[in-house]
Amino acid sequence: MQYTKITSTFLDQIKEAVGAANVFTDEESLANYAHDETEDLKYFPEVVVKPVDTVSVSALLKLCNENHVPVTPRGGGTGLSGAALPVFGGVLLSMEKFKKIINIDTQNLQATVEPGVITEEFMDAVAEQGLLYPVDPSSKGSCFIGGNVAHGSGGPRVVKYGTIREYILNLEVVLPTGEVIWTGANTLKYASGYNLTQLMIGSEGTLGVVTKIVTKLIPKPTQSVLMMASFAENEEACGAVSAIFRAGIIPSALEFMERKGVEWVIKYDDIKFDLKDNVNAFLMLEFDGDDLDHIFKDCEKANQVLEQFNCTDVLFADTAQQKEEIWRIRRTMPESVKSNSIYKEEDTVVPRATLPQLIKGIKEIGARYGFESVCYGHAGDGNLHVNIIKAGMSDEDWKNKLKDGIVEIFELTSQLGGTISGEHGIGLVQREFMSIKYSEVHLNLMRSIKKVFDPNSILNPGKIF
Amino acid sequence: MQYTKITSTFLDQIKEAVGAANVFTDEESLANYAHDETEDLKYFPEVVVKPVDTVSVSALLKLCNENHVPVTPRGGGTGLSGAALPVFGGVLLSMEKFKKIINIDTQNLQATVEPGVITEEFMDAVAEQGLLYPVDPSSKGSCFIGGNVAHGSGGPRVVKYGTIREYILNLEVVLPTGEVIWTGANTLKYASGYNLTQLMIGSEGTLGVVTKIVTKLIPKPTQSVLMMASFAENEEACGAVSAIFRAGIIPSALEFMERKGVEWVIKYDDIKFDLKDNVNAFLMLEFDGDDLDHIFKDCEKANQVLEQFNCTDVLFADTAQQKEEIWRIRRTMPESVKSNSIYKEEDTVVPRATLPQLIKGIKEIGARYGFESVCYGHAGDGNLHVNIIKAGMSDEDWKNKLKDGIVEIFELTSQLGGTISGEHGIGLVQREFMSIKYSEVHLNLMRSIKKVFDPNSILNPGKIF
Repeated sequence: MQYTKITSTFLDQIKEAVGAANVFTDEESLANYAHDETEDLKYFPEVVVKPVDTVSVSALLKLCNENHVPVTPRGGGTGLSGAALPVFGGVLLSMEKFKKIINIDTQNLQATVEPGVITEEFMDAVAEQGLLYPVDPSSKGSCFIGGNVAHGSGGPRVVKYGTIREYILNLEVVLPTGEVIWTGANTLKYASGYNLTQLMIGSEGTLGVVTKIVTKLIPKPTQSVLMMASFAENEEACGAVSAIFRAGIIPSALEFMERKGVEWVIKYDDIKFDLKDNVNAFLMLEFDGDDLDHIFKDCEKANQVLEQFNCTDVLFADTAQQKEEIWRIRRTMPESVKSNSIYKEEDTVVPRATLPQLIKGIKEIGARYGFESVCYGHAGDGNLHVNIIKAGMSDEDWKNKLKDGIVEIFELTSQLGGTISGEHGIGLVQREFMSIKYSEVHLNLMRSIKKVFDPNSILNPGKIF
Repeated sequence: MQYTKITSTFLDQIKEAVGAANVFTDEESLANYAHDETEDLKYFPEVVVKPVDTVSVSALLKLCNENHVPVTPRGGGTGLSGAALPVFGGVLLSMEKFKKIINIDTQNLQATVEPGVITEEFMDAVAEQGLLYPVDPSSKGSCFIGGNVAHGSGGPRVVKYGTIREYILNLEVVLPTGEVIWTGANTLKYASGYNLTQLMIGSEGTLGVVTKIVTKLIPKPTQSVLMMASFAENEEACGAVSAIFRAGIIPSALEFMERKGVEWVIKYDDIKFDLKDNVNAFLMLEFDGDDLDHIFKDCEKANQVLEQFNCTDVLFADTAQQKEEIWRIRRTMPESVKSNSIYKEEDTVVPRATLPQLIKGIKEIGARYGFESVCYGHAGDGNLHVNIIKAGMSDEDWKNKLKDGIVEIFELTSQLGGTISGEHGIGLVQREFMSIKYSEVHLNLMRSIKKVFDPNSILNPGKIF
């Protein structure tokens, strides 16, 4: 793809379109927006633009489209697949000034919000009205809700509440031509032609730029209980996961963690946790609702299932502090892994009953290629984050051989009925693996849809395919 | 659009592609497939084809695509928007021989099913395993699950369980070229490029022909209680709807019915129901779960809300027979209306708290245009089926003036944040109203997506736009 480099004349046009105060070309700005949370990758934009409203985004995209200048939209910069990296330079479009919660509609249980709002701030604001927006990725304290839409985000509560797909009703989107549409309606049902809302979700900023988001909200449960169960073997913990659902219980979170992950959290963070010698895997189960008696009944049923899988110990947390301490172990795990070793993260997802096969396979592949791995994730959804650790692997093998190992992991994932990303997206770093799962016919459909929205390929080029 | 008429040579090619025993040109067959449940519309196909497997569908589509012959896919023929009508003649592709439930996977809580399976038969089969597939449109006894996918179907339980969008994980689809893809993965999460599964859902057979469906299943609740509440005024009943959710209660069904609908059911069917003089509107509320005590707590909370909206009476049904009798009133309503008068049905959907405004507006529009209406529907989702009754309207006004009234209803729907179809689809009869809600830019995106999948426009032409 050939793109036009940004000239000083063009920069003036950008300034005119979005206001000079919102345009940055200083070295520090360019460096700040050259990376996200994906490994140690760096790509420098030519200019960082922080528009303040839809009209400015429209003017900016129109200008860039007419001049073949690439535009990379960016949310909170917490992505793990490199989707916000400006690989062709051009304009880095930061949505950080779209910070308004426009409306929390307590009559309809809906909210209208700008894409630059931090997910946790939005959750707190609706919680004040007794409402729940349940899509809370680990990065909820810094990621933007717009980035969550772009990635089809999940988080621990998907298992009961569903992914972001089930909470987004309508989107205001600026197309590369500068035209603005609303993708759907502010309704819980929609059978009025192709569902462009659902098409935009997970499209990683390659089809349009989201400037307003209408979400569904639900009543916030007032009670919850958290259980942390210990197992001697990974496979037993993973095996218990599907048995929980077969017993008719739906927890509001069901997380898996390997021992090494917990060890590293203890090393990284000041967390007190009694890690016993015979324990190699953990499940966290949360149950929520309004009726504590009812919740305890579910816990008791779950406990019976866990016992069948040789669970060695169950910790019950029902005070806010106990729950927070246990959740902190899980939430700190990504940073702890990162601080401990050079690593690569893969976001596998499979039908949940195949988790024991997946984790066993990953360890076998690791043994053959000489890498270790730390696995954790949203086991209730069959979503396992596989952290590949460099450990004793030589620099050369890490650089040249590892890819074949990753290919094998994704081939296994695919054979089990799964896919190569559950919630982190494809972005830059996973796109070379797309053909493991998807045929050329399938990928060409995606490419052609891209062309419908963005014929000049100015929006987030170099991503997904 | 110019299409090729089917010659006897071409008919032989079809027979070769799908087997002669699956090809029908007798008058009775052509007549049987010339209509669905939409008003009294009739369009005759040139041939009815009932293939038995994916390979045959692929061969048929390839042949028709190369020869510019239109193909209209058809499920159970219960549609209300005319989406299965072969308006350009050509091939009527009936999926009625795709009748296998391929697999009910009780480990992963998933099923793989062919599109010609009747929805209720599928529900019963999974229920035998203690599982729930909750998408049950009124026509569940005769509609096909494939037709439900094509229309993005809902039904009474959407309010708690979501629409079919939340239960379809993966689809095998034959494209007009004859190529076959799986649209996604058998997983609860998916962040691997554009979501073609979600794009296919609700596309009304215009993008590809679904030949296998992977659904999510959930544990089946063992208990339920049904309440039927009476009100003196429509607006009070509709007003109570959003208040129920604001009180933190999520029923598994929340239906609204106007008095006239109930009157007509009593007239049409042999139903005993004590219809009191001062009652003009009803709400049906169902609560489900595994714990009857917990359900009764919700009923009690709901009752308190209903009282605030001057509910005059509440009937509680907790035996299977009582529940069935009340549900029969609601389920028989479409047929009762149909048997009583010439009518047109519109499938409005709005944010639920605006229902009182919607129903008031519909009555005002009716008064101005001289038509009566009977409204009922899934009030918990803001989804109101508006049955426009000819009553005293002259034939000429019915033919010429009514359309303006319908336009006004949809304009009102749109102003309230809603859209022109919640679950019945656009098909043939609503497409002239699409521009009320969607801009030309928006519709052109849809048309261009259609071209990506079906450049020769052979699949279900004349529908949606």
